[in-house]
Amino acid sequence: MKIDGRAWRTIWPTDDGSSVAVIDQTRLPHELVVRELHGLDDTCLAICDMVVRGAPLIGATAAWGCFLALRTDSSDAGLQRACAALLDTRPTAVNLRWALERMRARLAPIAPADRVEAARNEATRICNEDVATNRSIGVHGLALIESIAATKPAGDPVNILTHCNAGWLATVDWGTATAPIYLAHDAGIELHVWVDETRPRNQGALTAWELGHHGVPHTYIVDNAGGHLMQRREVDICLVGSDRTTRSGDVCNKIGTYLKALAAHDNGIPFYACLPGTTIDWELDDGIAQIPIEHRRADEVERITGRLAQGGIGSTTITPVGSPAANHAFDVTPSRLVTGLITERGVLAADSDSIAAAFGRSAVSA
Amino acid sequence: MKIDGRAWRTIWPTDDGSSVAVIDQTRLPHELVVRELHGLDDTCLAICDMVVRGAPLIGATAAWGCFLALRTDSSDAGLQRACAALLDTRPTAVNLRWALERMRARLAPIAPADRVEAARNEATRICNEDVATNRSIGVHGLALIESIAATKPAGDPVNILTHCNAGWLATVDWGTATAPIYLAHDAGIELHVWVDETRPRNQGALTAWELGHHGVPHTYIVDNAGGHLMQRREVDICLVGSDRTTRSGDVCNKIGTYLKALAAHDNGIPFYACLPGTTIDWELDDGIAQIPIEHRRADEVERITGRLAQGGIGSTTITPVGSPAANHAFDVTPSRLVTGLITERGVLAADSDSIAAAFGRSAVSA
Repeated sequence: MKIDGRAWRTIWPTDDGSSVAVIDQTRLPHELVVRELHGLDDTCLAICDMVVRGAPLIGATAAWGCFLALRTDSSDAGLQRACAALLDTRPTAVNLRWALERMRARLAPIAPADRVEAARNEATRICNEDVATNRSIGVHGLALIESIAATKPAGDPVNILTHCNAGWLATVDWGTATAPIYLAHDAGIELHVWVDETRPRNQGALTAWELGHHGVPHTYIVDNAGGHLMQRREVDICLVGSDRTTRSGDVCNKIGTYLKALAAHDNGIPFYACLPGTTIDWELDDGIAQIPIEHRRADEVERITGRLAQGGIGSTTITPVGSPAANHAFDVTPSRLVTGLITERGVLAADSDSIAAAFGRSAVSA
Repeated sequence: MKIDGRAWRTIWPTDDGSSVAVIDQTRLPHELVVRELHGLDDTCLAICDMVVRGAPLIGATAAWGCFLALRTDSSDAGLQRACAALLDTRPTAVNLRWALERMRARLAPIAPADRVEAARNEATRICNEDVATNRSIGVHGLALIESIAATKPAGDPVNILTHCNAGWLATVDWGTATAPIYLAHDAGIELHVWVDETRPRNQGALTAWELGHHGVPHTYIVDNAGGHLMQRREVDICLVGSDRTTRSGDVCNKIGTYLKALAAHDNGIPFYACLPGTTIDWELDDGIAQIPIEHRRADEVERITGRLAQGGIGSTTITPVGSPAANHAFDVTPSRLVTGLITERGVLAADSDSIAAAFGRSAVSA
């Protein structure tokens, strides 16, 4: 999307082909810094340290990491080592495994001498497909926003609430939950986005940064506020992402998503999860019982980073000395609270039949 | 309650009777600092700047502010000026008006020469009554905790979730939502408290500080986490405070309370508001339609204060430059989501008949 009028993606090969550039997301929303990744170690560190984040972007970065690694060693052992190292960076990310398996399947059968070029092409394809998938999600979501806009008096914006960053920064471009928003904004529909802060890591600040630089009207709110806003009819539709979706339509997403789905349900406000078919986990049909929830480090709760009063970027510890903190990273929204799933193949009811009809099992190996 | 073994209140007259001491809550949870208030200006500033906070404590502080003001000028004009200045500090706080009206009603009819002594006595009574009221709330809530504990295997703590700080720091002692917790802990019942952070002002850090220094096991969590914990049966009961309660049982409390009530309801977990009869607003029977919600300054959302990495206490700005933030301070939990109201007159159903039977209209002028 655009940053102050200029189109960007989150990842791209540099002109001389020797490296890959990414937006350093550890510096956002406070500074826009581009970092170049020159090899396998660089790329692994960038994923580990969350210089890049978001499942689709992690997958794309891993694909480019393969390419960079093969430039140094395109042997079978080199390919094997690159995939293993990249997979190790964030072992639970579904898209990471998916992207690496796709790279390996494409590269293993061909001669080592041809692998660098093939890796570049495959990484490029993975990125372009991600962009196309998200844009399709956007087109299907746009129709929903248009139908809400049609019911509003002129000058009244469509109010959208979103949680976490399922934005273009989490993908190669467009984002999942933000794709309908960007398309609607670019089509001239008046809208306003309530951006949930999304403690503990405050990914809402990334969403606010994205929206602001693309020119989309928005307001940053604490995670506590959404229920009140829905009660007062200040939200027309909720759009969130999904890290993992059961075949029955349960949505595992950033912690706190479930609370917003409850409020939407209680107030009759449509609640949609925006997701590519690749996030559907065909092994699962009960998200609450079956999805293990990652517990992350307590210091993500205890410390917050921002711009210091005296200048510079730094962190501050907000919890009392001696008080333990817990950090549950995700929660599960049961399908009964999900109005629908906005996917690249259309808007689906959150149930087994609709999901199977749209994707079958093909999405597993897509 | 206790701080590391020693009993404290939040406010008390100093030994020589010339000033009033308070715990400076702007320094908590990072430093325990006692401040002395020497006169009317000091007291007004302490309320304005949230050196003291929490409706009951604000009322008690205003009563002591009257006493301090009358030491300098006990004339009718002096009394009038003191009450007006104190009322101006936080004009919407119900307890502030109530405490000042009580002081004026006690002091206006008597001779100026007798007013200082009478003010001291009345402020002392207001404080002692607050302590007694909260302890009664605690006794009634304790019975609920005991009945949950009785259903648990030995060694399994009762898990309580709380939101904001309706703790002893918000009152003179005991707190409202925390009174049952302290009594249960002191009675030897094993319990564990999930403490909601409560963005934007992070009053959960005060609750965690209180509980930690009194020795109550607890864990600090982000506001997003409670729904997940309830889904996984890691919460047995929710206890929150109430800033204003309609005669029909709707509860207006810190923003985000409604979301936790929804999650409790969805998971069949009891959800209680703990409140003194003085928070009942007999004029209102529809909290969502009738209670105006205060919008506070955006910088409470944008900036967070804590202990800086380089030492000292400071703030950091977490939102992107140019992104507006909104700060809705309260929300309304409709009575249908409230299992009951824990009051000094017992545990009541959250409906007009039960509330009227327990309090009638007497609470208005209590």
